[in-house]
Amino acid sequence: MTGRLTIVGLGPGAADMVTPEVSQALAQATDVVGYGPYVSRVAPRPGLRLHPSDNRVELDRAQAAIRMAQQGQRVVVVSSGDPGVFAMASAVFEALETMPGAADVAIDVLPGITAMLAAAAALGAPLGHDFCCINLSDNLKPWSLIERRLTLAAEADLAMAFYNPRSASRPEGFARVLEILMQACGPDRLISFARAVSTPEQVLNTVPLGQATPDMADMRTIVILGSSTTRRVGRWVYTPRFAG
Amino acid sequence: MTGRLTIVGLGPGAADMVTPEVSQALAQATDVVGYGPYVSRVAPRPGLRLHPSDNRVELDRAQAAIRMAQQGQRVVVVSSGDPGVFAMASAVFEALETMPGAADVAIDVLPGITAMLAAAAALGAPLGHDFCCINLSDNLKPWSLIERRLTLAAEADLAMAFYNPRSASRPEGFARVLEILMQACGPDRLISFARAVSTPEQVLNTVPLGQATPDMADMRTIVILGSSTTRRVGRWVYTPRFAG
Repeated sequence: MTGRLTIVGLGPGAADMVTPEVSQALAQATDVVGYGPYVSRVAPRPGLRLHPSDNRVELDRAQAAIRMAQQGQRVVVVSSGDPGVFAMASAVFEALETMPGAADVAIDVLPGITAMLAAAAALGAPLGHDFCCINLSDNLKPWSLIERRLTLAAEADLAMAFYNPRSASRPEGFARVLEILMQACGPDRLISFARAVSTPEQVLNTVPLGQATPDMADMRTIVILGSSTTRRVGRWVYTPRFAG
Repeated sequence: MTGRLTIVGLGPGAADMVTPEVSQALAQATDVVGYGPYVSRVAPRPGLRLHPSDNRVELDRAQAAIRMAQQGQRVVVVSSGDPGVFAMASAVFEALETMPGAADVAIDVLPGITAMLAAAAALGAPLGHDFCCINLSDNLKPWSLIERRLTLAAEADLAMAFYNPRSASRPEGFARVLEILMQACGPDRLISFARAVSTPEQVLNTVPLGQATPDMADMRTIVILGSSTTRRVGRWVYTPRFAG
């Protein structure tokens, strides 16, 4: 049997947002590897081995997945959302660089509905014009780089989607983010908090930036800051297609 | 019968990248509205009216869709990719603002796999770290704003995904984009051209920026410029999770 490593995105949570190609990859897998809560979204069946692991062991997990594929297994590495957006795809390629004998492993990456786009759809269309996507965790980059990117993105008048707004290790970070954005964008700019998007626990909250507080976000929240043109119509938030 | 307007994304082209919730919305529709080539991706069936229209009539199309929903029809507005990324969702909300009596129309937005994420998956994981997404068409914004955003995004060291790199009305625009990026990022920065992603015609091409030429992109191409850390491993292009 020829091994294969398929890196998939499970979408933000709803079962009917998982693409058919991802469902098919899971149906053909011998082994599923990933962070525990995501592995638990895969239905068990005879012949399928589940390998849940902890957060922050992405590189170890990726190396283990590559080794299983080298041994002939059909391995699926699962991420929430899209595997290429702050998720496992980069970790697998990082691992591949550390394993010289692994260059010939068959790999596929299957996209998923990333949380930012599910949040945007639930809110309306706040990312309907140019935007950026920034991970606010400073686990893997210096905090100064995050501040620099926020400032430049505001100067470029991009809408912004933020992943990992609140980390347990740096609870004060998101308060600082809100300060920087207030200074750059002013108190009337719209900011949306989308928690647990597409699940039964989904909560949406849009306020002017001047009314935003750090506790509006937690680890399950995607935050979307509008551009200067982002507006409301009825219960919706959207960014028009035109600008300038 | 209560009318409903559902704004959906059909994904980049492959049938197995259409989410089940979008397929279900199409199965329940009485009317499908959209740009001709996207409407033609919906299988005809008895009782389903197809309303294909030309490019650049997004607002007219959105108003017509809202009117049909007001009359009790189950209308699905289709976009390629994700409806919230340079597609029909913003146009529908713009139209809603022009129709004061339409505020109570039931609307849902269902996300799709946007071309940038399908392109990234086919290439590896070039958007695995902070990135931005810019529409290079100047139909709806001044060219100066595009240049300004490119310069600031390069200064922020974001990876960049570009939609609509080549327009018939401004063929010289993408040559200017490449000049600006060369000046800001240097000749060794990786740039990828992903054409007709997820279809049988898919072509991927990654070169150093110094070797990129305008003819490498056409209207069906998504262009992804790496950040300063984007690298190759084997046939893959990826951006590591860490930076700085």
